[in-house]
Amino acid sequence: MFEKNMRISYLLDFYGDVLDEHTGSVMRAYYNDDLSLSEIADGLNISRQGVRHIVKKGEDQLLFLEERLGIATHYIDLQSTCDIITEASAFLRSLDIDGAKDKGFALDEAVKTIKKRLT
Amino acid sequence: MFEKNMRISYLLDFYGDVLDEHTGSVMRAYYNDDLSLSEIADGLNISRQGVRHIVKKGEDQLLFLEERLGIATHYIDLQSTCDIITEASAFLRSLDIDGAKDKGFALDEAVKTIKKRLT
Repeated sequence: MFEKNMRISYLLDFYGDVLDEHTGSVMRAYYNDDLSLSEIADGLNISRQGVRHIVKKGEDQLLFLEERLGIATHYIDLQSTCDIITEASAFLRSLDIDGAKDKGFALDEAVKTIKKRLT
Repeated sequence: MFEKNMRISYLLDFYGDVLDEHTGSVMRAYYNDDLSLSEIADGLNISRQGVRHIVKKGEDQLLFLEERLGIATHYIDLQSTCDIITEASAFLRSLDIDGAKDKGFALDEAVKTIKKRLT
């Protein structure tokens, strides 16, 4: 049994551009467009087993990258820090104290910077 | 002329674990331990040209990863956001207002999370 793994879908969003073009397009068809192995095989005029092999190779590459770099996991944590920072910013901007609003705006800029690479 | 590029050194810190073991160890000897191509060649009993080839291949891999992922550059930006957040935290913790200190401590935790993957 060969099952779609939603963790792979996230890793594909994250590291997909590192895969070679062919592997990347098969992976996106399978994970993002939700096509079946057979549908992809028909479209490419190759065997279902051939598609399965490409998907497996792509999955291994994505899992290897995350195992070595751990960045996708870190970015999930970064997403939650943005909520904390945004809350502190709103608090600061609500204060009538010298410098508080500026610090709130600086935090908003920090959130923008953190989110630059978040999907 | 073959020059050491300090940008590569940063990318090596960042993506080095993705390189195969041999390439990684040659790259670290060249960039982190500051050995010359000839010194590495002598140690491995291969030609200077062979070492140069490995270093070039490693550099290409690191540059490819950064071109596709852009994460090392983002992490430089994240480093500077930590300073901004730390400053806002100090400000909040200095206030004698309900909830301010807690928001400051929450920001400190956010900084720790952001720094988890910073070298």
